Amino acid sequence: MQIQQVTTDSDRVQVWWADGERRRGDTAASGRASQFHFLWLRDNCPTARHPVVGEKVLDPVTIPLEIAPASVEVANGNLRIVWANDGHESVYEAAWLYDNAYELETRQARRYQSTLWTTQMLANFLPEVSFDSVTADDEGLLTALRLLRQYGFVIVRGVPTEPGMVVKLAEQISYVRETNFGVIFDVVSMPDPNSLAYTAVKLNAHTDLVSREAQPGLQFLHCLVFEAVGGESILVDGFAAAEELKRLHPEDYELLTNTAVRFRYQDKKTDINAKFPIIRLDADGNYFEIRYSTALLAPLDIDHHLVKPFYRAYQNFSHLLRDPRFEFKFRLRPGDCEVFDNRRVLHGRDSFNPQSGPRHLQGCYIDTDDFLSRLRVLERGGRDFRESLSVVRSA
Amino acid sequence: MQIQQVTTDSDRVQVWWADGERRRGDTAASGRASQFHFLWLRDNCPTARHPVVGEKVLDPVTIPLEIAPASVEVANGNLRIVWANDGHESVYEAAWLYDNAYELETRQARRYQSTLWTTQMLANFLPEVSFDSVTADDEGLLTALRLLRQYGFVIVRGVPTEPGMVVKLAEQISYVRETNFGVIFDVVSMPDPNSLAYTAVKLNAHTDLVSREAQPGLQFLHCLVFEAVGGESILVDGFAAAEELKRLHPEDYELLTNTAVRFRYQDKKTDINAKFPIIRLDADGNYFEIRYSTALLAPLDIDHHLVKPFYRAYQNFSHLLRDPRFEFKFRLRPGDCEVFDNRRVLHGRDSFNPQSGPRHLQGCYIDTDDFLSRLRVLERGGRDFRESLSVVRSA
Repeated sequence: MQIQQVTTDSDRVQVWWADGERRRGDTAASGRASQFHFLWLRDNCPTARHPVVGEKVLDPVTIPLEIAPASVEVANGNLRIVWANDGHESVYEAAWLYDNAYELETRQARRYQSTLWTTQMLANFLPEVSFDSVTADDEGLLTALRLLRQYGFVIVRGVPTEPGMVVKLAEQISYVRETNFGVIFDVVSMPDPNSLAYTAVKLNAHTDLVSREAQPGLQFLHCLVFEAVGGESILVDGFAAAEELKRLHPEDYELLTNTAVRFRYQDKKTDINAKFPIIRLDADGNYFEIRYSTALLAPLDIDHHLVKPFYRAYQNFSHLLRDPRFEFKFRLRPGDCEVFDNRRVLHGRDSFNPQSGPRHLQGCYIDTDDFLSRLRVLERGGRDFRESLSVVRSA
Repeated sequence: MQIQQVTTDSDRVQVWWADGERRRGDTAASGRASQFHFLWLRDNCPTARHPVVGEKVLDPVTIPLEIAPASVEVANGNLRIVWANDGHESVYEAAWLYDNAYELETRQARRYQSTLWTTQMLANFLPEVSFDSVTADDEGLLTALRLLRQYGFVIVRGVPTEPGMVVKLAEQISYVRETNFGVIFDVVSMPDPNSLAYTAVKLNAHTDLVSREAQPGLQFLHCLVFEAVGGESILVDGFAAAEELKRLHPEDYELLTNTAVRFRYQDKKTDINAKFPIIRLDADGNYFEIRYSTALLAPLDIDHHLVKPFYRAYQNFSHLLRDPRFEFKFRLRPGDCEVFDNRRVLHGRDSFNPQSGPRHLQGCYIDTDDFLSRLRVLERGGRDFRESLSVVRSA
């Protein structure tokens, strides 16, 4: 990234990138400049950060709202500003500015684009890796994590069928997130269940722990024993189904993204509830998560006139989640561990006959933050994290 | 709760409560009836739930959107409906209907009202309990949890000054939430810190782990040793400060509730970010959380025209958070543990001189879901959780 020249406008510095180094997301018609507000620049001066920790130490209340530069220039390829109010000098690396430009198109182009899938696509390519490759080195692990980010799931083959191995696998990525179901949960048919998961009934595709404010991110389900008849696993790309809902029934999509509904889980020791939309978008309008479990929907506490539209949308989305185009069915074998983004890829299972033989899975969770953090750190390689903060110079 | 009579309208049953048993939230002018949509009623029929687990087993796609009753009556004090499409009988207890009525005023009246505080109020009443009372029995623990819910913090006195006791205290409530800082974190001045918390600098009031999608709920800070000069603790009721911002600068309040900004944390092993508003409201417009840390605000990725309004609002809110009316300062003594709702009550500390003596706190976190769950289960007492689902009859 090279800066060709810099100019100023009323409240901003415009950085003109050298030919051939257009902003990410640029179309031919758009400009070659990125704009940086004076306030933004002063607050993000490299000297505003602790040189070791990298956290900000500049107190934001000390920045005059009308701050402006006395001088702006390109110096040694970097942007150099001297501020009019106190003569402070700020020097910004070109690469850092490029990476942090905040025009809408630039932000959109920076966003990771996952691959939405249908069962037809999975017939040609199934995201799977071996336990040996994941545990061998960083490269093998990185391959698995990238598949997870791209498809929302990966199947790990050849995991030793010993109890507790699911945590060993998860800890390749991060520490495990404990929940009210414990650190590890055993998915078996039980005499005194506290969840439908611990019966032998069919479970329609759902996300786990919908009644918690933060649904778990990654879910691991490791097959230890499977001799029962039935019990095939189901995975559904909830974002793909949501896209189809938007196409077929845009008003239903609008309703499910904008109407928060409550989910509630109770047992002898627990009483948890949360109210969020079934299709939740983030602050920039991108998919954030699906929150869907017909088992745990609480009595609706929404306005009366929304009740019927909600059930219509809920039924239409439910039909799509069970549509053979989206519902991927397969049989786990002992030693398989399905790992999936619980907030994107819904999971379920067919009913099984517990008299026909045992079926035993072990599961655990990891937060999305910790999954993505591990992925970013692996991608960072050996570089000093303070480079991306501009506190130390990039190599 | 007694039902006087029931009537039907085009899409609903109206339940008229007996005199003197008005809906919660009723004013003299409003009616005495609660309305329940036919779809709502059918989906919440007690037979729609698993009798042991309590989860729903009725498949929502099987409910006709035009469902209507063949008959509606009061039978043995309960609402009894026979459905026209399939003759299914649904019986709803009056108390359960009353508890789940979903008119807006009813929902609002059901919501817990916490007590927003100023330093002046704390001069008259400080929420504090003894370690002995919290560990003695359920009643003592319930008292502490209710203070926490009401004020957003409680100070526990007389916690043995042994390392690890902070987890023993937290486990009175629930399992601990591990984070990238571990299960327990030691707040001491360190030679090679990975957070400003582990230096001796002043920390303005902030919430912890703003860069994570789910900020921790309860935070525990247990004072083991404190001989250093300086280092007084700070607590600020963020919801009280937000209310004051709304009163003084309504446009700033609007901006901070509607504009998501990114926070980012990095160290050698970690790279986590999240984008949410600084003042976040829930689906019903009530305070959900404050997310505020000047140390971890990432370069803004918002529209250019919002940059200056953001800094103005950010500065105004920052000034309020440091206003002596809201900033409660006190000195922890060895054996004290401050426990606070990290998403409501901001915490900080004055700088201290590490040469003047040691200062050692130990901390840990618990999720809000698990804190509130414990509180609800304690308040439930010995009652069967399936009563509130209407799956078993209330006593």
